[in-house]
Amino acid sequence: MPRATKRPSAATQSLFDNENDDTVARKTRTKKKAGGAADAKGTGGSPAPRKRATAQSMAERQREISVSEFFTKNRHLLGFDSPLKALLTAVKEAVDNSLDACEEAGILPEIRIALTQTAENRYRMAVEDNGPGVIDSQIGKIFGKLLYGSKFHKLSQSRGQQGIGISAAGMYGQLTTGKPVRIVSRTGKRKDPVEFLLSIDTAKNKPEIHKSEVVEWDKDHGTLVEIEMEARYQKGQRSVDMYLKQTAIANPHLTLTFVDPAGEEVVYPASTKELPPETIEIRPHPHGIELGRLIAMLKETTARSLSGFLREEFSRVGPMVAKRIIKAAGKGLTEKSYPTRIAREEASALHEAIQKEKISSPPTDCIAPIGEELLISGLKKELEADFYVAATRPAAVYRGNPFQIEVGIAYGKPGGIGLEVTDEGRIAKRKDSKAATEDLVGSADETARVIRFANRVPLLYQQSACSITKGIIQTNWRGYGLQQPRGGLPIGAMAIVVHIASVWVPFTSESKEAIAAYPEILKEIKLGLQECGRKLGTYIRKGKRIKREFEKRSYIEKYIPHIGIALQEILDLPDRERDEVVATLEDVLHKSRKF
Amino acid sequence: MPRATKRPSAATQSLFDNENDDTVARKTRTKKKAGGAADAKGTGGSPAPRKRATAQSMAERQREISVSEFFTKNRHLLGFDSPLKALLTAVKEAVDNSLDACEEAGILPEIRIALTQTAENRYRMAVEDNGPGVIDSQIGKIFGKLLYGSKFHKLSQSRGQQGIGISAAGMYGQLTTGKPVRIVSRTGKRKDPVEFLLSIDTAKNKPEIHKSEVVEWDKDHGTLVEIEMEARYQKGQRSVDMYLKQTAIANPHLTLTFVDPAGEEVVYPASTKELPPETIEIRPHPHGIELGRLIAMLKETTARSLSGFLREEFSRVGPMVAKRIIKAAGKGLTEKSYPTRIAREEASALHEAIQKEKISSPPTDCIAPIGEELLISGLKKELEADFYVAATRPAAVYRGNPFQIEVGIAYGKPGGIGLEVTDEGRIAKRKDSKAATEDLVGSADETARVIRFANRVPLLYQQSACSITKGIIQTNWRGYGLQQPRGGLPIGAMAIVVHIASVWVPFTSESKEAIAAYPEILKEIKLGLQECGRKLGTYIRKGKRIKREFEKRSYIEKYIPHIGIALQEILDLPDRERDEVVATLEDVLHKSRKF
Repeated sequence: MPRATKRPSAATQSLFDNENDDTVARKTRTKKKAGGAADAKGTGGSPAPRKRATAQSMAERQREISVSEFFTKNRHLLGFDSPLKALLTAVKEAVDNSLDACEEAGILPEIRIALTQTAENRYRMAVEDNGPGVIDSQIGKIFGKLLYGSKFHKLSQSRGQQGIGISAAGMYGQLTTGKPVRIVSRTGKRKDPVEFLLSIDTAKNKPEIHKSEVVEWDKDHGTLVEIEMEARYQKGQRSVDMYLKQTAIANPHLTLTFVDPAGEEVVYPASTKELPPETIEIRPHPHGIELGRLIAMLKETTARSLSGFLREEFSRVGPMVAKRIIKAAGKGLTEKSYPTRIAREEASALHEAIQKEKISSPPTDCIAPIGEELLISGLKKELEADFYVAATRPAAVYRGNPFQIEVGIAYGKPGGIGLEVTDEGRIAKRKDSKAATEDLVGSADETARVIRFANRVPLLYQQSACSITKGIIQTNWRGYGLQQPRGGLPIGAMAIVVHIASVWVPFTSESKEAIAAYPEILKEIKLGLQECGRKLGTYIRKGKRIKREFEKRSYIEKYIPHIGIALQEILDLPDRERDEVVATLEDVLHKSRKF
Repeated sequence: MPRATKRPSAATQSLFDNENDDTVARKTRTKKKAGGAADAKGTGGSPAPRKRATAQSMAERQREISVSEFFTKNRHLLGFDSPLKALLTAVKEAVDNSLDACEEAGILPEIRIALTQTAENRYRMAVEDNGPGVIDSQIGKIFGKLLYGSKFHKLSQSRGQQGIGISAAGMYGQLTTGKPVRIVSRTGKRKDPVEFLLSIDTAKNKPEIHKSEVVEWDKDHGTLVEIEMEARYQKGQRSVDMYLKQTAIANPHLTLTFVDPAGEEVVYPASTKELPPETIEIRPHPHGIELGRLIAMLKETTARSLSGFLREEFSRVGPMVAKRIIKAAGKGLTEKSYPTRIAREEASALHEAIQKEKISSPPTDCIAPIGEELLISGLKKELEADFYVAATRPAAVYRGNPFQIEVGIAYGKPGGIGLEVTDEGRIAKRKDSKAATEDLVGSADETARVIRFANRVPLLYQQSACSITKGIIQTNWRGYGLQQPRGGLPIGAMAIVVHIASVWVPFTSESKEAIAAYPEILKEIKLGLQECGRKLGTYIRKGKRIKREFEKRSYIEKYIPHIGIALQEILDLPDRERDEVVATLEDVLHKSRKF
């Protein structure tokens, strides 16, 4: 096959296009002479100075770029920039999918994650869930095609929203190890478990299935996905371990098992048997709609009247609102106008009328926050601290999208203030001052730790670019008894947790690492922080009093035995009476405590 | 047509999937009972608690997401987040395309940009060039399809690299105004100019051509693109004006005309008649290749031997290097192994052998920097300052990609230090201290202005996330006589220009606003800054001396007349002699200057 006519595939395109190549250069010249004819015969004339491109020769190099090729070359956009981050991203995408599927199917999720080192810089990730499974005909597309999924086109609260994640993880594995993705799935007791081996044809963005067969599997239903990839495993702030720990905090209904590369198993048991309420899908709110989208919707609707269109396709539009909008739009539009026949000019008038009409805010029951109680119990389970507080804000709306903010604070690391009031009203030193959660609460002279969640998914990267961090910085923590440098996070042994739940979380990038700073979102974050901050302030002030009291008392306590001895000497008491006096004095001291 | 069976199109999908809809909910229940059968008959039984989804019902909701839909919903990723930024992004994409096309075709670019306000928050952008034009059959795809282009698959220095920009601008216009894009193009004198009106079918990512016809046009060749969009126009640091001014600096061969919405015309004339050298396309360097990519290349090559494959598909691999690699790989591979028959295991060994083999760095003649001379003349043309310096670093390599860093500094705003040495060696105050370029040079007590370019394109957003800014901050400017707060930019009336030219610029996002901080890139940036910094330091020290000298002299100068008068009184001189003495004294003073 002559080189110049071969299929211009991804890998050989650069060669095909190489203008240094004599054949191609000559070809281009010929074409120019022929005024754009597609004749590829070489003329072989004298070596004239190389001519630059023409519209014709440039046209020949234009071609489609598949979305897989695009994201392979730009994999840093999806969170696969370094081996360390790639491992975290892959685990995250798999766990997100498992949780979404379990919740959608009403199953209490049990997920097992195992990482195995297969070579110096290679790991195999296996994520197994007890979810509803994936039917055979969908496995290829779900795991082997970018931009394919069920969540992109609906407005409902879910972890995934783009249909990219898990396929991108597989694509990264394939790129770095050449190995296919392994999937085992079963959709029910009476169905056979099937095993798939597949890779992605990046030039076509299509799955290539190497193997699919019925296998033995001990699960009644669920999915297992295995990806081998170039990776680095390391514990710490942005590790898989940290991600899983935080996932357990935000998902108290989840039972999570993690087997790390050393073979150690950690289990995060569920702290509730109740699934989060099912998240309801909503229709778009009219105020959030762009003109172009309205025109597309008018074209595609099955409603037979304009009034019907407005009522059926949007939330919060009843017959009266529809009537008023149509009247305000004018341009000869009536409630009975046939939607598909409405031209651009009329649609534009309709769009304007919609923006001007007062329409109630979108329904907010489509959001499922964690809830104050579960957030606190989640924090208690994973973070050892002295004081916990949480606040769930009422739902609000940005750009037509409902969202809800929750804030939790865990304050005072054992061994920090290190005091607790026992059930009997006694102040005791904590026995176990060894903090297993050092990483999450930090020490008293450090800045507060920020734990960010979006739809219950921990966000570990790009903290400073996130509106959650901005909200914390813009809150006045000095008012609550904490130190805070100008333009910085507050100082103290504390973890600040912020969760945003929304039908559409506005991430700043595809890798979903930071929340865009919409004013409405920032405002709600700050209100939530203030709510918790006030309670924290009360506790801190009380804590300071306790501390002073404790210091005073421990000082007196220290001398009570000496007082006893002195009294014994002065009054010539027997040892028994001396001990009685000491006990009485201690008792009086405890009773005189004023808190 | 019953609702449940209609085509699930973008706009109606949310309705189709709405689980609140009784029909759908009942349908789901039926299916569950039937164990996954696709029977859609409603049972209409008693209102049992709503069941959640099954693998079957979930599968029915899975669908493909077109890349246009994806980027419409995520348009902030492409730089279309606000009306202000959208206008800049659209102009930038159109101008980038024009410049790339002109250079590729060897035409000295003349570009005219006109912005017209069409409604309160709407503008029409028209960008017209004298480029090679686009042939009819390509117009639809180039302007109406995302991920289509000629630059993605080749390694060569160009402004565009993704095949998204101009189509995304059109898509944004369509989304916000409903209006199609207008294109006029002509590929040569003997060809007819054609006019196209087109929009993008976002659900399919395909152009919809509304009109294409031959029209009258006064240009011999070129392209005009017109997009109307929701936008805001405003002058300032991140304005269209600023972008164009900076574009003129980095493209001294460009003649640019800008007509702003008020109808005012600004012309930036070209300062050179020479096109930048044509950028050569290169083959990938073997050290930058991932295993998965190597496997794909082996499959797709037309080379008939492994040795031929290595030599033809990669740069810097000659027969000896190929031989050594193949020998090191082992696994029975020989120079004559047939590439398409090499299995994964062997490819993996080959990949390892490639990484271990010493291979010379990729060729760097594929990079076309602006050059020190042209960079300085560009700065002089657009920025009024006292001192200019530029440095073009030798080409270097990151991750197998050649790149080159250039740095320019314009220092000392007229009216700042405000002195200049005249041709006669006299120190004079500048006449015109009104700085037309206030915005670009800043004042003496402000931080330096940073002007960033990537492949000659100005970067106006995300300055703090950019490795250029990091390089400036990490440079010790105090050593060059400037103030610099810890972890901050230097202080002074100056503009620091940094240009990175590369066959693949590693942007941190699709909107191409900041450069990723690869260590090799950061190092080169700092070396370039140091080179300029040292020269600046010499100038500043001299400047400080001049200033001190000037102050002393002006002080003496002030008193010379008084000395004259005193001498006159003491020596009883006539006025003429007194004036002579004064003149002599002034002359002596000027001659005694020591620089």
